[in-house]
Amino acid sequence: MTELVHARPDTPRAALVTVGDELLLGDTVDGNAAWLGRALAELGLRVVHRTTVGDDPAAIRAALQDEAARADVVLVTGGLGPTEDDRTREALAQAAGVALRTDPEIVAALEERYRARGYERLPPTNLRQAEVPEGARALANAYGTAPGLALEVGEALLVALPGVPREMRGLFEDHVRPLLASRFEGRLTPVHVRRVHTTGIPESVLAERVEAALEGLEAAIRAAVEVAYLPDLRGVDLRLTARGARKQAEAALEAVEEALADVVAPYRFDDPEGDLAGALGERLRARGLRLATAESCTGGLVGRHITDVPGSSTWYAGGVIAYANRAKTVLLGVPEQLIEAHGAVSEPVARAMAEGALRTLETDVAVAVTGVAGPGGGTPAKPVGTVWLAVADRWGGGDARLERFAGDREAVRERAAQAALKAVYDHVAPA
Amino acid sequence: MTELVHARPDTPRAALVTVGDELLLGDTVDGNAAWLGRALAELGLRVVHRTTVGDDPAAIRAALQDEAARADVVLVTGGLGPTEDDRTREALAQAAGVALRTDPEIVAALEERYRARGYERLPPTNLRQAEVPEGARALANAYGTAPGLALEVGEALLVALPGVPREMRGLFEDHVRPLLASRFEGRLTPVHVRRVHTTGIPESVLAERVEAALEGLEAAIRAAVEVAYLPDLRGVDLRLTARGARKQAEAALEAVEEALADVVAPYRFDDPEGDLAGALGERLRARGLRLATAESCTGGLVGRHITDVPGSSTWYAGGVIAYANRAKTVLLGVPEQLIEAHGAVSEPVARAMAEGALRTLETDVAVAVTGVAGPGGGTPAKPVGTVWLAVADRWGGGDARLERFAGDREAVRERAAQAALKAVYDHVAPA
Repeated sequence: MTELVHARPDTPRAALVTVGDELLLGDTVDGNAAWLGRALAELGLRVVHRTTVGDDPAAIRAALQDEAARADVVLVTGGLGPTEDDRTREALAQAAGVALRTDPEIVAALEERYRARGYERLPPTNLRQAEVPEGARALANAYGTAPGLALEVGEALLVALPGVPREMRGLFEDHVRPLLASRFEGRLTPVHVRRVHTTGIPESVLAERVEAALEGLEAAIRAAVEVAYLPDLRGVDLRLTARGARKQAEAALEAVEEALADVVAPYRFDDPEGDLAGALGERLRARGLRLATAESCTGGLVGRHITDVPGSSTWYAGGVIAYANRAKTVLLGVPEQLIEAHGAVSEPVARAMAEGALRTLETDVAVAVTGVAGPGGGTPAKPVGTVWLAVADRWGGGDARLERFAGDREAVRERAAQAALKAVYDHVAPA
Repeated sequence: MTELVHARPDTPRAALVTVGDELLLGDTVDGNAAWLGRALAELGLRVVHRTTVGDDPAAIRAALQDEAARADVVLVTGGLGPTEDDRTREALAQAAGVALRTDPEIVAALEERYRARGYERLPPTNLRQAEVPEGARALANAYGTAPGLALEVGEALLVALPGVPREMRGLFEDHVRPLLASRFEGRLTPVHVRRVHTTGIPESVLAERVEAALEGLEAAIRAAVEVAYLPDLRGVDLRLTARGARKQAEAALEAVEEALADVVAPYRFDDPEGDLAGALGERLRARGLRLATAESCTGGLVGRHITDVPGSSTWYAGGVIAYANRAKTVLLGVPEQLIEAHGAVSEPVARAMAEGALRTLETDVAVAVTGVAGPGGGTPAKPVGTVWLAVADRWGGGDARLERFAGDREAVRERAAQAALKAVYDHVAPA
C-alpha cells in the first residue's frame, strides 16, 4: 500500500468531486483529479475518496454531501462556467442549505474584464458567475472569469474551483494552498520529496537493484523513506518521499540517495523537470558545445525533444531526418556502398551518419540513430527494436552501440530517441 | 447538457468504480475511466456516476454497493493483481455477501502460463488471482494473468476488470461488450457516430459557422443529431451522434454532414484515426508521390508526425531540421544574403527552404516551415506565433502563406506542424 505510513493520527482527510458530463462520457480524461491528488498529498493531507458526476445539480449536491461526511476538506472542480450546464454553484448552496445571492463586487469585476477586452457589455449569461452561496467566500480568479468558492458545510470545508486546468491550478496555488496550510496548521506533516530521473533501465530491473542496495540501510532510515517507481516510455523516475521535521527527513533522504547512487549512476540524469533534453542542453551550454543530429527511424523525434527546450538554438544547430537510404547519402555523405554492404541499420552506417552530421552542420558533437522501429522491416538478424546509436565529436572521439528495444513502433522510437540524447549526455559529461 | 436527449426510458444505467491508491494520489491519471465511459456510451448505456477509491477493501466494497444501488451494471477496474495491495476480489465477495473460493481451473491456467514463460512454478502470491467469489463467472484474460469477474449483486451486474489498460480493454471487447449486448437486448439504443476531422480553425469560430449552417435543416433532423466539438492542439474533431434505427439515424447524419460540408471543406481531412499525417500519406501514396520536409521552428515535429505513420517510408524521403540559419544554407542551399535581407522567418526564405529540400532529397513535393515559436525571439513586426509555410513541387508549382498562431511554444509548434501537413495535403488534392 502506498499509504502514508507515517501519517499523523490527525492528518486531515481530503476528498474530490469532479463535475462534468464530458468526464463520465470519456470525452475528457480527468487530469484535474490527478493533479489535485498529488498536490494535496504533498501538502500532507490524506486523499481518501473521489466522485465524478455529470452536470446534474442533484447528483452534484449528493456527491458534495457524501464527501463532506467523510472528509475534512472537499475540493470540487467544474461546473462554474457561464452556461446553463454549469450547476455547481446551486448544488453547493443546496448542500449547505443556503440561498444563492448575486455579489455586486463580482459583477463589477466581470463587467470590467469584458470592457477591457473590447466588449460593450457583459453577456447576461455571465451574470450567473457572480452568484455566491450565502456565507461563502469568493476566491478571485486571475486566469478566467469564474471566481472559486469556499464554504463550510458541517465540519467540512468545501472549495469549488473552475474545471479549466490552468484556472484550477492557478486558484489552488493562489488560495487553496495557503487556506489549507493555515486551517490545518499543526496537523500537516510536511512532505519532503526528491526525484531521481533515469533512462535506459526497465522498472523491474531497477526496482530489484535499488531494493538490494537499500537493504544495507539502518531500518529506521529505510522505513522513513517511501520509494515510488514512476515509469513511462522515456524512462523511470524514482520518487523518494519522507515526512516530518525537515532535518530528519532530509537526512533520511540523503542516506537513501547515497545508498542507491551506484545503482542509478549509469542511467541517471539531472533536470528539474525530469527532461533529458533539458539536462543535455545544460551540459552543452555549460561547455559551449553545439550539437547536430542525424535521425533515421526516429524521424525527427530527437530534434523535436531538443527543440522543445526553450533556448535550444544556443546549443543545437539542426539535423537531418535521413529516412530513406538515399537521403543518408545525399544529406550526410554516407557512401552508398557502405549501406549496401552493411545495411542501413549497422555500426558503420551509424558512425558515418554521425560524422556526416558533424561535418555538414559544423558542430562540436553529433549523434546518429538508425534502427528498425516496426511493425514491419524486421529480419531474424535485425528484428524490430534493433537500433544502432553513434556519437562523434570534432576531436576525433566517438562511440557506437547496439540496442534492442522492446515494444511497439511508438515505444521503439521513443526509447531510441531517449537513448540518443543520453548517449550525448554521457559523452559530454564533465571530466 | 450533453445528455442523451433521445435515450429510451429504459436505457440501462452504468456506473464505474476505479480502484487504486495511485489514482487518488495522482500518480496515475484515470485513463480507464474515460475509455470505459466512451465505450459504454457508444454501446447505448447511460453512464451516471463514478467513484475512485484506494486499495482498501472496505472502501471498495462500499463503493460497489453504492454504485450497484444506482445502476444496472457496475464496472470496477483495478485491484486484481497478485500483490497484497490487490483487494478487489475480496471486496466484490463481501459486497455480494458470498465467500471466495479458489478455482482449480484458473490455478491450472496460471501454472501453464508461467511454465510457458520458462518459470519452474507459479509464485505462491499469484494463487490469489485464482480466487473467485461464489457464484461469479471468471472472464478469461488473454492479455495477462488476472481473469475478470462477473457477478450479480442485487439487481445489478458487477464486472471486475484488470487495471492494466491493455488488459482492461481486451477483456471489455472479448467479454463485456457481448455480455451487455445480450443482457440488455432491446434496451440499448444503437448509436451511430460520424467524426469529421478539421485543422486550422478555432473551435469557437467553427461552432458558430456550423450552427449557422445547420439552422436551415428540418427541425426533426437537427434534433436527431448531437454535435460535439472535441478540440485539441492539432485541431477540432466534430463528433456527430444519432441514436435509433440505422436507416433513420444514418439519414439524419447524412443530412447534417451535407449541411456543414461547405463550412468544413477548407479545414477537413479524412483519416479513420483522425491523423492528418496518415491522411496525407494516403493521398501521396495514391498518387505515387514522395515528400521531403524542411523544418526550422518545428524542430523535427513534422518529420515525427509523418514517420509515426507505419509505412511512411513509401512516401517520405526524409527532411532537414535547419534550426540555425547556417543550417538553412549548408543543408538547403538558402543563400545567406536572402536570410540577411528578409530574415529567417519570411516568404523568400520559406520558399527557398522548400525548393532546397525538393532538390536535395529529389522528391516530388516538399514543405517548409519557418517561424517564431517563442517564448523569446518575437519582435513587433514578427511576434511569437508568426510562421511562414511554403510548398514546392517539381513541376514548378508552389505556394507560400503567412500564419499567426496563438498560444505558447508547444501550441505554436504543434499548430505550425499541422498547418504544414495540411498545406501539402491540400496541394496534392485529387484534381
